[in-house]
Amino acid sequence: MKILLPDTMELDPALPEGWEAVVVDAREPIPAEHHDAEVLVVWGSSRRHLESAARDLGSLRLVQSLAAGVDGILAAGFADDVVIATGAGLHSRTVSEHALALLLTLVRRLPEARIAQEHHEWSRELGGLQPLHPEGRLTTLLDARVLIWGFGEIGQTLALILAALGAHVRGVARSAGERSGFEVIAADDVMSALPGTDVLVDILPASPETAGAVGREVLDALPDHAILVNVGRGATVDQDALLDALEDGRLGAAGIDVTDPEPLPADDPLWGAPRLLITPHGAGGRPVGADERIARNVRSLTLGEEILHTTAR
Amino acid sequence: MKILLPDTMELDPALPEGWEAVVVDAREPIPAEHHDAEVLVVWGSSRRHLESAARDLGSLRLVQSLAAGVDGILAAGFADDVVIATGAGLHSRTVSEHALALLLTLVRRLPEARIAQEHHEWSRELGGLQPLHPEGRLTTLLDARVLIWGFGEIGQTLALILAALGAHVRGVARSAGERSGFEVIAADDVMSALPGTDVLVDILPASPETAGAVGREVLDALPDHAILVNVGRGATVDQDALLDALEDGRLGAAGIDVTDPEPLPADDPLWGAPRLLITPHGAGGRPVGADERIARNVRSLTLGEEILHTTAR
Repeated sequence: MKILLPDTMELDPALPEGWEAVVVDAREPIPAEHHDAEVLVVWGSSRRHLESAARDLGSLRLVQSLAAGVDGILAAGFADDVVIATGAGLHSRTVSEHALALLLTLVRRLPEARIAQEHHEWSRELGGLQPLHPEGRLTTLLDARVLIWGFGEIGQTLALILAALGAHVRGVARSAGERSGFEVIAADDVMSALPGTDVLVDILPASPETAGAVGREVLDALPDHAILVNVGRGATVDQDALLDALEDGRLGAAGIDVTDPEPLPADDPLWGAPRLLITPHGAGGRPVGADERIARNVRSLTLGEEILHTTAR
Repeated sequence: MKILLPDTMELDPALPEGWEAVVVDAREPIPAEHHDAEVLVVWGSSRRHLESAARDLGSLRLVQSLAAGVDGILAAGFADDVVIATGAGLHSRTVSEHALALLLTLVRRLPEARIAQEHHEWSRELGGLQPLHPEGRLTTLLDARVLIWGFGEIGQTLALILAALGAHVRGVARSAGERSGFEVIAADDVMSALPGTDVLVDILPASPETAGAVGREVLDALPDHAILVNVGRGATVDQDALLDALEDGRLGAAGIDVTDPEPLPADDPLWGAPRLLITPHGAGGRPVGADERIARNVRSLTLGEEILHTTAR
């Protein structure tokens, strides 16, 4: 039995007996001598690589992505009986770390400090004695009301850190309830939670339902001092609405690691939006525990046991 | 019995019976009608305010600072029988949050992202697929080896958050041992720990022993990719050595909230050092729990019980 590993990162999974691992070029179509593969591991794989796999791998049983989002795989046209497993959890620590970095940088006004530094200016406005909670501005996560929209493994990992920093954290998911000890609001009720939200963290996957979810209505419902962080998918935010909200002073600040499209074109006005920090999709990009996940799911496939994080189609 | 509160922040401590609170101008000498005060609360108080207090308050028993560092009070010349209590702990959450913000901003390369954004450039170097631990560069706190020099309440608060982010944290204090579950190295042994340190966080107070503690020898002993964060006191870092290390590429990056002197003069070459982020002493500046601390120590003074966080002189 054969498993195809991408050449985009170093992998060395401990496979069950009888499995042969072959490294293939993740940008190119699958070579004919490997069309007998039963498992395909996907990481930074090109569209034509995925389309070749969907078309040419007649014995394929499992596509194991190392990414949290599998929209590209779903679009490639794999047969219905091919199991698609996401890399959910492999990015929880890195993506939550990046979300925290974006958020703390904005809360602690480090971009403003950088500009003052360029002018060799010791800004009295950014330092010295100050109220804990100044009117109309969020300057600490202590007591901040955070709403995490998309409350999976990344969101829950982030929530625990934010709570340790003194924030009050709630999640938003399809159904209401409690996860990891945090209150979860149903997505249908999100509007009612926004006026009492200082920080909105978007960790939504791309899907027809989430497209433009953070639009004018949502941004208008947030307080003017609110901070938006997006480490989900660019298409979940209405970028025209975001630009307007920042330009009109109806949003405190935003930090986004994802845009629509990516790369963001050089002439897109979003680049110049005030109080906006853009990072070029660098939150994740480095799965943690990939070998263990591959080994685990190949073993489960072999033994007919449950495969972790399969995608419903 | 009279307690003098500074006008630099809103305070409303629940005082024991018999105590009268009077708000005074913290920049001016103490008015003659309040020279009978027995307690002085200090926050952003000027040197001449402190010198007046030391000279004029004949019945003074307790100086309660709301700041973590009391070097200014110690220099004012209070009589030996006046108890000086620091605001230790009141800044643990805010200062540790700022230290984390500086550190994560540097680790996640947000200043570089900001520059790329100014050029409308989607930097391939800062995003996309990447190794978890690239050679010669720290890009995540996961597995990072952090040394916190000055391991009091702020340091231990920070340590818990960093550990939750996956870092390996050790402290440095006067004597070796364990605090809050973290290994503590004696300050005399700090040199041996530096080669295995990715992040050095300086939370040292200003004192004759700590002056220039982070000097050439310390900076040379750190790996070239190491990040320095200083939220202690500016005088604990040899700024000429820091500038040289950054310019010569012998230090990965630095984020400092304190300088010597403050404000940093506009013509100081440190402003333009590469890979350095300066914030204007804004980490703390907003004591959390000040009323409770004042009330607690005034009650202890009244009852002859132990006063929290007194300073040995």
